[in-house]
Amino acid sequence: MESSLLVIVVDDEPVIAQLLEEALTDGGFSVHSASDGAEAIRMLDATGAEYRALVTDVNLPPGKLTGWDVAKHARELYPEIPVVYMTGAAAHDWTSKGVPNSVLVQKPFAAAQVVTAVSQLLNQGNTPGV
Amino acid sequence: MESSLLVIVVDDEPVIAQLLEEALTDGGFSVHSASDGAEAIRMLDATGAEYRALVTDVNLPPGKLTGWDVAKHARELYPEIPVVYMTGAAAHDWTSKGVPNSVLVQKPFAAAQVVTAVSQLLNQGNTPGV
Amino acid sequence: MESSLLVIVVDDEPVIAQLLEEALTDGGFSVHSASDGAEAIRMLDATGAEYRALVTDVNLPPGKLTGWDVAKHARELYPEIPVVYMTGAAAHDWTSKGVPNSVLVQKPFAAAQVVTAVSQLLNQGNTPGV
Amino acid sequence: MESSLLVIVVDDEPVIAQLLEEALTDGGFSVHSASDGAEAIRMLDATGAEYRALVTDVNLPPGKLTGWDVAKHARELYPEIPVVYMTGAAAHDWTSKGVPNSVLVQKPFAAAQVVTAVSQLLNQGNTPGV
Amino acid sequence: MESSLLVIVVDDEPVIAQLLEEALTDGGFSVHSASDGAEAIRMLDATGAEYRALVTDVNLPPGKLTGWDVAKHARELYPEIPVVYMTGAAAHDWTSKGVPNSVLVQKPFAAAQVVTAVSQLLNQGNTPGV
Amino acid sequence: MESSLLVIVVDDEPVIAQLLEEALTDGGFSVHSASDGAEAIRMLDATGAEYRALVTDVNLPPGKLTGWDVAKHARELYPEIPVVYMTGAAAHDWTSKGVPNSVLVQKPFAAAQVVTAVSQLLNQGNTPGV
Repeated sequence: MESSLLVIVVDDEPVIAQLLEEALTDGGFSVHSASDGAEAIRMLDATGAEYRALVTDVNLPPGKLTGWDVAKHARELYPEIPVVYMTGAAAHDWTSKGVPNSVLVQKPFAAAQVVTAVSQLLNQGNTPGV
Repeated sequence: MESSLLVIVVDDEPVIAQLLEEALTDGGFSVHSASDGAEAIRMLDATGAEYRALVTDVNLPPGKLTGWDVAKHARELYPEIPVVYMTGAAAHDWTSKGVPNSVLVQKPFAAAQVVTAVSQLLNQGNTPGV
Repeated sequence: MESSLLVIVVDDEPVIAQLLEEALTDGGFSVHSASDGAEAIRMLDATGAEYRALVTDVNLPPGKLTGWDVAKHARELYPEIPVVYMTGAAAHDWTSKGVPNSVLVQKPFAAAQVVTAVSQLLNQGNTPGV
Repeated sequence: MESSLLVIVVDDEPVIAQLLEEALTDGGFSVHSASDGAEAIRMLDATGAEYRALVTDVNLPPGKLTGWDVAKHARELYPEIPVVYMTGAAAHDWTSKGVPNSVLVQKPFAAAQVVTAVSQLLNQGNTPGV
Repeated sequence: MESSLLVIVVDDEPVIAQLLEEALTDGGFSVHSASDGAEAIRMLDATGAEYRALVTDVNLPPGKLTGWDVAKHARELYPEIPVVYMTGAAAHDWTSKGVPNSVLVQKPFAAAQVVTAVSQLLNQGNTPGV
Repeated sequence: MESSLLVIVVDDEPVIAQLLEEALTDGGFSVHSASDGAEAIRMLDATGAEYRALVTDVNLPPGKLTGWDVAKHARELYPEIPVVYMTGAAAHDWTSKGVPNSVLVQKPFAAAQVVTAVSQLLNQGNTPGV
């Protein structure tokens, strides 16, 4: 494998971002991190980057973009990109604000849940017609 | 069963609306029809109605609400309501504009696909924790 | 096909039993009906019968066996038999009292939901290793 | 819907072919029938035809092509075409001879199982990335 | 995340309990262990504890409670709690004695199977209506 | 657990074989490696070996057996063995050349995807009738 598989993690809490980066790196993924929605969207829009999965907190810093917004933008650029949302509260909004074929992980969660969710969504997307 | 299970079908083509109404009624569902998005939303908002599933064309009469809008509104009112989208063209928008746990049925389709999709989504929703 | 596929339907409300029998027969199944749990168990135990699916009300006549009991007995005799429970109330008991790989259908339901659930469970069971 | 959705049914037993044709037509599908593997392959190869699903007996007339062969050929022409195999015996061969994302229906079966299997496979294929 | 996600592991073989504890802790879970069914039930009943998943051997010390009993008790307290059974022998009892939405892992197994099963069941339970 | 669960990994690129062996061993699996299709088939056919999962590159050294061939052979010996294909290019052939209930992982991938795929396929196979 010349290149590795790039995941974008969006979270404003450095401790969680750090834990996820370690767990994903340990699983063989490469990770880029953004600490708010605007930064995430700049990274997704940047030339040359190619993201293969998005892991985003739902409640990003107030007055700015939410995780729902970031995921919709990611799907417009990459129609099949796996999306994992993390939330401590807004679980019920997922059915109206989430995108199809996404996973919602409720806090507190274990990092293995996120690694499993990303892996499973990638594996489904790679098996055409499933 | 005192009452029957009510499905709302939104389509501006009377022939398709008619075919779906027949197939769903044949399967034991009750059906209310709307011919555009605004009418669908009025029906969903009406007091006393209780809809258990939504079947909607994506491309409703131009200049008005789309099927994506109707489905989001339905999910805000009924967070778990099954959603089936029908489309002749916009299949790729589903991954960014659709709601989670929905099914997209591409035209031309057979009525059995819609009856199966509605049944399956209802059966999943009724088994908590699946 | 020399013989047809036999489904046992257990319900003490004749109207529902009748509706299900019609819908299942229409779908190509053969149906035997029982009106309480004891009768269902006698039928399952009878020599020569070979049931391929069970559809049972949860709340059978009080003081007698429940649908949970009938389903456990059926699974002891036929370890892979598809089970569909129908209930107006006890949905939350399903996670502790139901059997694995069963479907819970909540009243009011449409007959198509039961036909779809039986078909889907049979199709999964016939594909070894899924 | 200008055109309808075309299913090819391959079976050498006219009674089963007839039952399936009725059930699929009733569900809103159009059906073309072939009575052996060679005829099925000629039909799949014909200019202008556009098949959207394949339902095939596994054990077609001896000395000729099997249902496994027909399905592989169909998938080479239509990479995502839903496949339903019917068999009275060869269920265990499915894990080595079948194609991915297919359903095996064991005889005796009810026609509703085939209609449900075709509908479900079509609905999955239409939701990209599921 | 203030607190971490607590899993209860029930096994009378210290080597397996130890392996699972290491693998689950490595995946970011917190683990409490019980060596028989009675201890597991005391722990589940204790005030203040909040278990989010159960991993249990089926064949616990004879003359006492089995893993089937522990799981049913856990589901009465926590209706949606993920359940993973481990067994060297009793795989066929699972269809009649197991609870819905559980996973059976057959010995010998790899610890990754248990971590994946727990993660997957948690992820499904957190996405309402799936 | 007296013995451990044995996975056969088939890849002609030593770096990938090494990465997979580390990740699978870390997850609690035992791994045997083969560097081409003929070696894999000799290992599968050997007396005394008992493989519980197959992970194979699709494009093995030219002029020899492909990963498609190895998987079919494995399934003839072990009808339910989980199969994970890895490929940089031939994703579209999977729908006609792959076996049922397999997963296709597209390069570049992360090792966690393979561990998750093997775990998930094993867990499904251990729950009879799912």
